[in-house]
Amino acid sequence: MKSERYLRGMERLMEVDGTGGERVISSLQTIAPDLADYVVEFAFGDVYSREGLDLKQRQLVTIASLTTQGGCEPQLEVHINAALNVGLQNHEIIEAIMHCVPYTGFPRVLNATFVAKKIFEVRNGDVK
Amino acid sequence: MKSERYLRGMERLMEVDGTGGERVISSLQTIAPDLADYVVEFAFGDVYSREGLDLKQRQLVTIASLTTQGGCEPQLEVHINAALNVGLQNHEIIEAIMHCVPYTGFPRVLNATFVAKKIFEVRNGDVK
Amino acid sequence: MKSERYLRGMERLMEVDGTGGERVISSLQTIAPDLADYVVEFAFGDVYSREGLDLKQRQLVTIASLTTQGGCEPQLEVHINAALNVGLQNHEIIEAIMHCVPYTGFPRVLNATFVAKKIFEVRNGDVK
Amino acid sequence: MKSERYLRGMERLMEVDGTGGERVISSLQTIAPDLADYVVEFAFGDVYSREGLDLKQRQLVTIASLTTQGGCEPQLEVHINAALNVGLQNHEIIEAIMHCVPYTGFPRVLNATFVAKKIFEVRNGDVK
Amino acid sequence: MKSERYLRGMERLMEVDGTGGERVISSLQTIAPDLADYVVEFAFGDVYSREGLDLKQRQLVTIASLTTQGGCEPQLEVHINAALNVGLQNHEIIEAIMHCVPYTGFPRVLNATFVAKKIFEVRNGDVK
Amino acid sequence: MKSERYLRGMERLMEVDGTGGERVISSLQTIAPDLADYVVEFAFGDVYSREGLDLKQRQLVTIASLTTQGGCEPQLEVHINAALNVGLQNHEIIEAIMHCVPYTGFPRVLNATFVAKKIFEVRNGDVK
Repeated sequence: MKSERYLRGMERLMEVDGTGGERVISSLQTIAPDLADYVVEFAFGDVYSREGLDLKQRQLVTIASLTTQGGCEPQLEVHINAALNVGLQNHEIIEAIMHCVPYTGFPRVLNATFVAKKIFEVRNGDVK
Repeated sequence: MKSERYLRGMERLMEVDGTGGERVISSLQTIAPDLADYVVEFAFGDVYSREGLDLKQRQLVTIASLTTQGGCEPQLEVHINAALNVGLQNHEIIEAIMHCVPYTGFPRVLNATFVAKKIFEVRNGDVK
Repeated sequence: MKSERYLRGMERLMEVDGTGGERVISSLQTIAPDLADYVVEFAFGDVYSREGLDLKQRQLVTIASLTTQGGCEPQLEVHINAALNVGLQNHEIIEAIMHCVPYTGFPRVLNATFVAKKIFEVRNGDVK
Repeated sequence: MKSERYLRGMERLMEVDGTGGERVISSLQTIAPDLADYVVEFAFGDVYSREGLDLKQRQLVTIASLTTQGGCEPQLEVHINAALNVGLQNHEIIEAIMHCVPYTGFPRVLNATFVAKKIFEVRNGDVK
Repeated sequence: MKSERYLRGMERLMEVDGTGGERVISSLQTIAPDLADYVVEFAFGDVYSREGLDLKQRQLVTIASLTTQGGCEPQLEVHINAALNVGLQNHEIIEAIMHCVPYTGFPRVLNATFVAKKIFEVRNGDVK
Repeated sequence: MKSERYLRGMERLMEVDGTGGERVISSLQTIAPDLADYVVEFAFGDVYSREGLDLKQRQLVTIASLTTQGGCEPQLEVHINAALNVGLQNHEIIEAIMHCVPYTGFPRVLNATFVAKKIFEVRNGDVK
């Protein structure tokens, strides 16, 4: 039986990441089901369920962290979609990515921007 | 004569980073004055002066980027002070740093948290 | 009241990290007590309490990860002590650090080696 | 004529990395043959041929280092295969990757896990 | 109307990066046109237009930085082409990449080498 | 008896890094003497002894790599001194560091610049 943390986490994951997050969880079942549980319980049941910052603020932080980390294009795809899911606008997401240029340079920012571009084109039919 | 970008950047830098930022700019004058100008003109005159995100949101993004980047404790010190300068609360700064755990792990988050702890103790006389 | 995960994690943390880990947990109480709980519950109660690798193997993995991450000297200090606590020999720890040279280069390996050197001198009275 | 270090290294490389390593060496011949020699002589003839840790332990360290480094999916592919070649079990490799979550976060761990998943599916016909 | 920095930057970008750089700038127009302007104005109008190092030296520095950063294969593709555009020889580019092995390890150097290999094959019809 | 690679490497290390490099090698003797040998034999006897780039070019590459890597201030100290030893001017070193801003952002560049500043003050009695 799943813990209360798991149930709270899954609810939060569905609210934030939607089908993109669900797909990650599902793709881990045959290889590392406990890792999937940790994503749900710890990342979403514990961290994402905290008060103190709202979901829009948390997605700004997530996008900045993933952009700066580098090599996280699959996770950026999930979390740029998540940012839109919780109500951030296209241009706010681009602003958050661009704001990282002075801290992490153009290459990581360009990589994140092109992930956003692809998502905006799919979701909106256009990119503005 | 300094450009309009420089003047706008210096005004923004003083508003955001205050004396901590001024100290960085000043310490560069004998070694790399043009680098100081780029910080002022590009990071503050261009990027920080943009619309689309307010200064609180920009500081959340900055703190997430610096925490994730690692090895940026001097810059975190300037920008955690900056976060307080633009109106973020102690607990919101800690939330932003903690929100990076799932993305970048505990070590970078602990390093950033201890920078914040030192600043809060100096500025507030306490840490809550 | 602390959860079962917390109690299991604290027991494991004391076994592995000893007083070094306790000091980190304690230093977080005034600034980010929930972060301390996550270290105990998630890193130690969940991950370190898993089967499949024994504690010596886990410390080899931890040391390789922290060496490669860079900028984690405080955490290396805790975990090189932990490696000794769980029964790894000085020379095995050095081997694990040196094995990272082909993957992450000399600088990060030198930084980790000098952390180990300091610890071995304190604990053993010598470094061989 | 190849040096003793080269011969020892090539033997070790074949034992550890097998055809995956051979393919990397071979693909470097037209562009950077000396780089191929350094991989063989230094990484395998020197480092991998050392005593102090056995090959299973060295592969745990390698996988932790590559997972944490990020952006090393091609090298992870070679070295997860190598881990299986030297006798580590699927579940031990997954444990080593998962053990890095507290140190480097979920994204790098997920990226490494999906490399492992692909390899396990090809080699084993299944992933457990 | 574009600023003098923009015009100087675009001239420098065309001289250095050629069509590869132009393509990046162009692909940003629908998603983040100001980011494109910053690349042109700041990276090329300011930094690349400086004296003190010639363009060959600047490309050696760029290639070392991108190789070490990791996860910057698209940017390496632009800048290895740029290195050839400003007169560096194939073997000098490979030397610069290989020189990074002691500092950043084999994986990032191999990733950069394979980007170079692809470019040399396309541009030269061969790789030596 | 030391190999030819070791002797060539030590000669090159003394020429490039001088007493700063010697101090690193010496400090490793009690803790990891083989690691010291690898620095001498591989980094200096193999890589630094190659043709194709001269020592000034190699130091530009080294400085760019260490600046971008981050958390390598001790190694930057050795290699900025080395850059001066092989004939680079103060301002060329600063240019190389500044050239990394677009690729790795201001924080790593500022950290490297302050290492250079300290060295220039000690060696030159001034910083210009």
